[in-house]
Amino acid sequence: MLLIKGGLIVTAERRFDADILCDDAGQIARIGANLEAPTGCTVIDASGLLVMPGGIDPHTHMEMPFMGTTASDDFFTGTAAGLAGGTTSIIDFVIPDQGQSLFDAWRDWRGKAEKAASDYGFHVAVTHWDEQVHDDMGRLVREGGVNSFKHFMAYKNALMIDDTVFLRSMQRARELGALCTVHAENGDAIAFLQAQLLAKGETGPSSHPLSRPAAIEGEAAQRAITLAELDDTPLYIVHVSTEEATQAIAAARLKGLKVYGEVLPQHLVFDESVYHDSDWLQAARHVMSPPFRPKAHQKALWGGLISGQLQTTATDHCCFCQDQKMRGRDDFTRIPNGVPGIEERMSVLWHHGVVSGRLSAEEFVAITSTNTARIFNLYPRKGCIAPGADADLVLWDPSASRTITAGALHQNVDYTLYEGMTLTGLAVKTISQGVVVWDEGTLRAERGKGRYIRRPALGRERPL
Amino acid sequence: MLLIKGGLIVTAERRFDADILCDDAGQIARIGANLEAPTGCTVIDASGLLVMPGGIDPHTHMEMPFMGTTASDDFFTGTAAGLAGGTTSIIDFVIPDQGQSLFDAWRDWRGKAEKAASDYGFHVAVTHWDEQVHDDMGRLVREGGVNSFKHFMAYKNALMIDDTVFLRSMQRARELGALCTVHAENGDAIAFLQAQLLAKGETGPSSHPLSRPAAIEGEAAQRAITLAELDDTPLYIVHVSTEEATQAIAAARLKGLKVYGEVLPQHLVFDESVYHDSDWLQAARHVMSPPFRPKAHQKALWGGLISGQLQTTATDHCCFCQDQKMRGRDDFTRIPNGVPGIEERMSVLWHHGVVSGRLSAEEFVAITSTNTARIFNLYPRKGCIAPGADADLVLWDPSASRTITAGALHQNVDYTLYEGMTLTGLAVKTISQGVVVWDEGTLRAERGKGRYIRRPALGRERPL
Amino acid sequence: MLLIKGGLIVTAERRFDADILCDDAGQIARIGANLEAPTGCTVIDASGLLVMPGGIDPHTHMEMPFMGTTASDDFFTGTAAGLAGGTTSIIDFVIPDQGQSLFDAWRDWRGKAEKAASDYGFHVAVTHWDEQVHDDMGRLVREGGVNSFKHFMAYKNALMIDDTVFLRSMQRARELGALCTVHAENGDAIAFLQAQLLAKGETGPSSHPLSRPAAIEGEAAQRAITLAELDDTPLYIVHVSTEEATQAIAAARLKGLKVYGEVLPQHLVFDESVYHDSDWLQAARHVMSPPFRPKAHQKALWGGLISGQLQTTATDHCCFCQDQKMRGRDDFTRIPNGVPGIEERMSVLWHHGVVSGRLSAEEFVAITSTNTARIFNLYPRKGCIAPGADADLVLWDPSASRTITAGALHQNVDYTLYEGMTLTGLAVKTISQGVVVWDEGTLRAERGKGRYIRRPALGRERPL
Amino acid sequence: MLLIKGGLIVTAERRFDADILCDDAGQIARIGANLEAPTGCTVIDASGLLVMPGGIDPHTHMEMPFMGTTASDDFFTGTAAGLAGGTTSIIDFVIPDQGQSLFDAWRDWRGKAEKAASDYGFHVAVTHWDEQVHDDMGRLVREGGVNSFKHFMAYKNALMIDDTVFLRSMQRARELGALCTVHAENGDAIAFLQAQLLAKGETGPSSHPLSRPAAIEGEAAQRAITLAELDDTPLYIVHVSTEEATQAIAAARLKGLKVYGEVLPQHLVFDESVYHDSDWLQAARHVMSPPFRPKAHQKALWGGLISGQLQTTATDHCCFCQDQKMRGRDDFTRIPNGVPGIEERMSVLWHHGVVSGRLSAEEFVAITSTNTARIFNLYPRKGCIAPGADADLVLWDPSASRTITAGALHQNVDYTLYEGMTLTGLAVKTISQGVVVWDEGTLRAERGKGRYIRRPALGRERPL
Repeated sequence: MLLIKGGLIVTAERRFDADILCDDAGQIARIGANLEAPTGCTVIDASGLLVMPGGIDPHTHMEMPFMGTTASDDFFTGTAAGLAGGTTSIIDFVIPDQGQSLFDAWRDWRGKAEKAASDYGFHVAVTHWDEQVHDDMGRLVREGGVNSFKHFMAYKNALMIDDTVFLRSMQRARELGALCTVHAENGDAIAFLQAQLLAKGETGPSSHPLSRPAAIEGEAAQRAITLAELDDTPLYIVHVSTEEATQAIAAARLKGLKVYGEVLPQHLVFDESVYHDSDWLQAARHVMSPPFRPKAHQKALWGGLISGQLQTTATDHCCFCQDQKMRGRDDFTRIPNGVPGIEERMSVLWHHGVVSGRLSAEEFVAITSTNTARIFNLYPRKGCIAPGADADLVLWDPSASRTITAGALHQNVDYTLYEGMTLTGLAVKTISQGVVVWDEGTLRAERGKGRYIRRPALGRERPL
Repeated sequence: MLLIKGGLIVTAERRFDADILCDDAGQIARIGANLEAPTGCTVIDASGLLVMPGGIDPHTHMEMPFMGTTASDDFFTGTAAGLAGGTTSIIDFVIPDQGQSLFDAWRDWRGKAEKAASDYGFHVAVTHWDEQVHDDMGRLVREGGVNSFKHFMAYKNALMIDDTVFLRSMQRARELGALCTVHAENGDAIAFLQAQLLAKGETGPSSHPLSRPAAIEGEAAQRAITLAELDDTPLYIVHVSTEEATQAIAAARLKGLKVYGEVLPQHLVFDESVYHDSDWLQAARHVMSPPFRPKAHQKALWGGLISGQLQTTATDHCCFCQDQKMRGRDDFTRIPNGVPGIEERMSVLWHHGVVSGRLSAEEFVAITSTNTARIFNLYPRKGCIAPGADADLVLWDPSASRTITAGALHQNVDYTLYEGMTLTGLAVKTISQGVVVWDEGTLRAERGKGRYIRRPALGRERPL
Repeated sequence: MLLIKGGLIVTAERRFDADILCDDAGQIARIGANLEAPTGCTVIDASGLLVMPGGIDPHTHMEMPFMGTTASDDFFTGTAAGLAGGTTSIIDFVIPDQGQSLFDAWRDWRGKAEKAASDYGFHVAVTHWDEQVHDDMGRLVREGGVNSFKHFMAYKNALMIDDTVFLRSMQRARELGALCTVHAENGDAIAFLQAQLLAKGETGPSSHPLSRPAAIEGEAAQRAITLAELDDTPLYIVHVSTEEATQAIAAARLKGLKVYGEVLPQHLVFDESVYHDSDWLQAARHVMSPPFRPKAHQKALWGGLISGQLQTTATDHCCFCQDQKMRGRDDFTRIPNGVPGIEERMSVLWHHGVVSGRLSAEEFVAITSTNTARIFNLYPRKGCIAPGADADLVLWDPSASRTITAGALHQNVDYTLYEGMTLTGLAVKTISQGVVVWDEGTLRAERGKGRYIRRPALGRERPL
Repeated sequence: MLLIKGGLIVTAERRFDADILCDDAGQIARIGANLEAPTGCTVIDASGLLVMPGGIDPHTHMEMPFMGTTASDDFFTGTAAGLAGGTTSIIDFVIPDQGQSLFDAWRDWRGKAEKAASDYGFHVAVTHWDEQVHDDMGRLVREGGVNSFKHFMAYKNALMIDDTVFLRSMQRARELGALCTVHAENGDAIAFLQAQLLAKGETGPSSHPLSRPAAIEGEAAQRAITLAELDDTPLYIVHVSTEEATQAIAAARLKGLKVYGEVLPQHLVFDESVYHDSDWLQAARHVMSPPFRPKAHQKALWGGLISGQLQTTATDHCCFCQDQKMRGRDDFTRIPNGVPGIEERMSVLWHHGVVSGRLSAEEFVAITSTNTARIFNLYPRKGCIAPGADADLVLWDPSASRTITAGALHQNVDYTLYEGMTLTGLAVKTISQGVVVWDEGTLRAERGKGRYIRRPALGRERPL
């Protein structure tokens, strides 16, 4: 048992002074003033700290095979790093191999994820369509605890689907009560532009954003929304990085549609100038999709979060080390797409969101945890501080500052995007399943301690 | 003491089974499973019912002197009717007489309101500008518990202010931490159109909507937002009735501005055809401002509520009986503007919002109570079910139906807009200050039991 | 030689009183006051009439093989009907057979069109991509007098192309100085919805609009514009029928892009209620794509024309008789898509555009003739009244009325959409190549008199 | 008589090789190939030159008393400078003194303008409302040849009117067939912001743009359009300088409203950085209203011109010399608002519009001359090259370059905004009333040669 005393509890709704007692099942047992510590109970002094629901990162790619290599953070190292940053759950992606059944792929990824240190779940990618996919979707929802499927409108000749497959998957997901998520970029246009740039000999990282202009994200978001609107299917757009996509989502929501948007902190903080670094490696380290954008888009993304039209934050955590990035030395289309960030996310958002005055602490909880839990039907087990909820908590020092450096982080990758950035706001302790796993700089993550989280099908009601 | 057992608690955030114990101070003492009833405690069986925060109506005009007469519901009858409908708090308006100081007016209205049966607060109208107004605003915030001021862009030669007064009041409100609220219609245009219509001999109620077209609400909303944006002043637009205003608000919020919008249930349900009733009185009974709109606007208002871009619902409850409405028999501009609705609001919104599938029960709580409490800084005292909160609750039967008829209502007025409409969703019991005041059809409202609610100045943080 | 005396000349720019002398080469020789008739010159009295450039219909499908049958108006009957309605030129479409080279197809269609009574040109459809297409496009522009290529985003498994083909064709067209035109509807979505409707047994014409909702035209228009914007390629969207597409075009133009939109008069006049006719044949006769829309879209289309954001009008003239329409008796997807209209177009637009007060006579000329001539580089040979221009003219009675009936028309089809509609504005005489071919009810169209019009490649300058 | 031989005639519609014969009445007598020179006729060789309609500047303020001083260019020097730049007509403004009748004011300004070297007309400002104004408007339209009235939404306590006056003037103008023009900035907000800035001691020119943010131009434009839309009154918005106003105009036009927008070349070329010049005088010389804007607005203005949603260009030519600008040395609100530009306009627009590839030569003619002539009902007397039109022409060298310097210009003011800017495109000869008045660097402007141009009331038809 664990008793957290003297903290200021902050949820997505409100802040109040109370103690929290966690039971041995890893759940919150009681919340109240001046709780007595039962015998044998560990007591933590949270004075001066905020006690918030642990972060949920709904977009990670641990040990993903991608572009000829494999992401360097595995389910253990990646989730452990998450705990060090205050994130207590992830939702990763099952990406079936060419020709592999969705269910088999899900089983494989379940196996890989057994080493996870924190709780986890899976979205499953639909990358083609046939009867097997149709049936597997049903089985995954009914038996597998999966309630969300991923669709790629980009990565032509690899993961990309056409609108027909998307429509079929939407129809199936709707009848199953599952949520469709989508990477919205026009893959045809990207492939065309990539070829054009390579043909001109423009092979460096600065071609990466040129091959993926903002307009084609806006186009794809608009298209996905239009398809979803045909039968009022809920839709979740991952890593929204542009004003165009933000406005498409906001317009759809204003029509009453259930459309959600996810933002990555890196898109809020960095702009396309990163690709013009004279150091090839520095530029290549920022290669991810969608790319970093002209600065004006950041204002739109913040506006989306502030107004509630974009609901969640994630990282698209997908680590590649120097030797991996070097695969694209002569061809930017071969630079493995991906950046780290699960460990930094909460601090980056606190600093740039709350300290800057853009967001309240309650809104911080909403966009780092609660909204995600609601949308993916983990709430109130996750994202909530209430009796019966999982005791996944972060004790947060709102005013502690530190300067980020890769060497001090726990991600299994040789850099951080935020190197040298001084951030205010810090996870002092992280509690997962009622146990302190990050304790003022000491990481006590345990391999295999994480549990697979079954997410039930969504009902008809709108979560947000 | 009062123990509510066996209900399903629904807040703006979640639903959960628990009992609620209310103490003798009228606050929630405990929430939990299987609470024991202390000695002498009244026990209510809430099985099968939802237990929700009591409604807050932030826009009423009890016994308001207006257009040569006085609204027929006084603070007692009006708040009592509210209780019968599940509404446990109102925020009414202090409208100073010509030349009267704001503070004196507020004192007068405090006096009138002492008869109220439920808790209440006041917005204070700023209808001109001088040093006295400047000083009174300060005194009202610091001493009076007022944190919101009302501005009329309509009612030329009466309540209307020009943009300069509005800017000065905004500046003052911002420095005081008070919220500016605004009736957004272009009063110059209305007066011009009214004169034009009267000159053409078009004196009936069907001229009312013609004199106040949707575009001039949109214009005024856009103007108010532009003025507020000059120094990032929070703004609350009352009774939003048009797509134009909804979009102006949504666009402003998407830029990160603190702009809020309020919707009246009647605008969601009725359209401008009501003014073409061959029965003059029936048409006149619908005369209020802004008027009922072409049907397409309803879709926009629902979209605003569903997407969270419009946050609150109110009634603009302002009752005039037949003889009062008859004052405008020969001139539609003399028909007292106003309709009843405080008693019907919650049912209308449950039926047309939740039963229709547009809103979840949690969202219903948000738009009828919690959001209002947050925006006007009553939260978590009001709009919240938590230990320490006021025990203002409604026990709701989500599936009970009844047909509305004026005779069965408690409002002191001779009609209801909803006559003959069958609504599902009903306040079975209403609890105010921990006491059952509406009990399955029996109204036990007590004259003078309502308390004036002091609302502290708003901090820098955004409420929603 | 032909001398037209006493008319009021109306061009896209202005109106002025002058006589026009046409020479024997079929061109305008002189314009001036009180011109003398040379010896042997025919003189026409145009007093009380407007003398305008003959109409140009840039979107017809004469004798097109389509959906298992062939459009019933051939190049002679169709162009003759055009002359009877005041239209003196058409641009038809070369649709290559599966596997046929573009150039061979163009040669075939040149052959078919030799019977035409009026001048004509061709757009050539790009329905797949390979080196042959690339080369043929060049040859067609350089040798064939073709400066526009057509792309179908609809008709999956038939004419539809994907975005990659579209991008390649755009790139090629841009380097050739040719204009890309596009049928903008999402073919994947249509096929999906058609299958869904048929599976539900909804096989009648009322399913036609349900399978092609307005949103998927808007989506495709937005997508086409986005692709065109990638390299600032001019784009012409045919038969714009929705508010969504109109707004996408207007927004693009406001960014300075060269995007054009074409409207069909039938979309301005009819709405989707036509598909609910209890007479199957009547409903089926309205089956064309895009379908007729809810009434609100008409307002948007008119706004587009009035503001200059939509520039041209066409008919998509493609006639199918009763027995042809009956092919879809049991399956609405087999009803040949197409309606007649080349003969009625000018009158419909004069009546609903000019008589209604929406457009000036000059604007009528612009949208029926001059703008089309400019955009497709026929100007000032066509669409212009000036010395040296082709003597293709219509003498118009602006106030003559008649009631449309299929029997009185010259189209080779057994119905007219406008049956029973009384229209004001009438082609009294039509002059093609300096010869009167339509003379107060007498049609003197001559088989094979029409010439193929070579349209040179477009320069860099924007036509409109 | 004057014969212009060998030029390429460019109108708003087309370009063609022809000679132009001007008669002694100052009109175009004939246009044609190889015209013979009548006896005694002056012949000009225009080989290699474009022959275009002379520019029309619909927004100048010659010798205007303003802010305690008088604009330094009088009607002679100003119009003479216009001729040197290729502008052959202006429309200036009659601004009545406080209490002066509109008709008397118009008579006074007629007197002042008698010295003009080129043709001219007047807009008359409506700055208050009473019966006299109502009657004078009628007399000015019927007897005075005035068909446009000006309204100021800015300049509080001076020229500014409220919405009621604006509505009355709109109603009157509509019944008279006159066009309402408007300076759209919210004067209340400007006065408020000016006072706020001065109170903070921010007295320099850099406060000028801060006191007039883009949003308040957008607001006023939107408001003016909304008021005009109430009774579908045509509206012309002068000096549109923002994206917000451009979009408001475009949206209104897309609804079919007759709304027009005017752009000043200086807003296309300069941005707000000019106010941060360390040299006070340099900054002060740019003080005009609306001020120069952040760069992004320029793109919107160009888009408006390119798409035809903004139709005209003007200068707001209003010259103040150093000693005049110095009046605001200690208070930016006292810097006389105004800049020169009539002489540079045509070159600036050719260089930045045509040479840059944004506009065709025909579009250049449209926005510098023809559109203005149409909107203000001067067409086809002005803005047109046709027999019977005024022989106001400019012979333009499209590729000649020169570097602008105040000393080489003819405006009666001690600076030019364009000092040191090298512009391609030059008026080689200007012809006014059939006479060469600017001849390769020699100005032969004649005092008093200009004629007052009576502009008849507008009919119901939309000009553009």
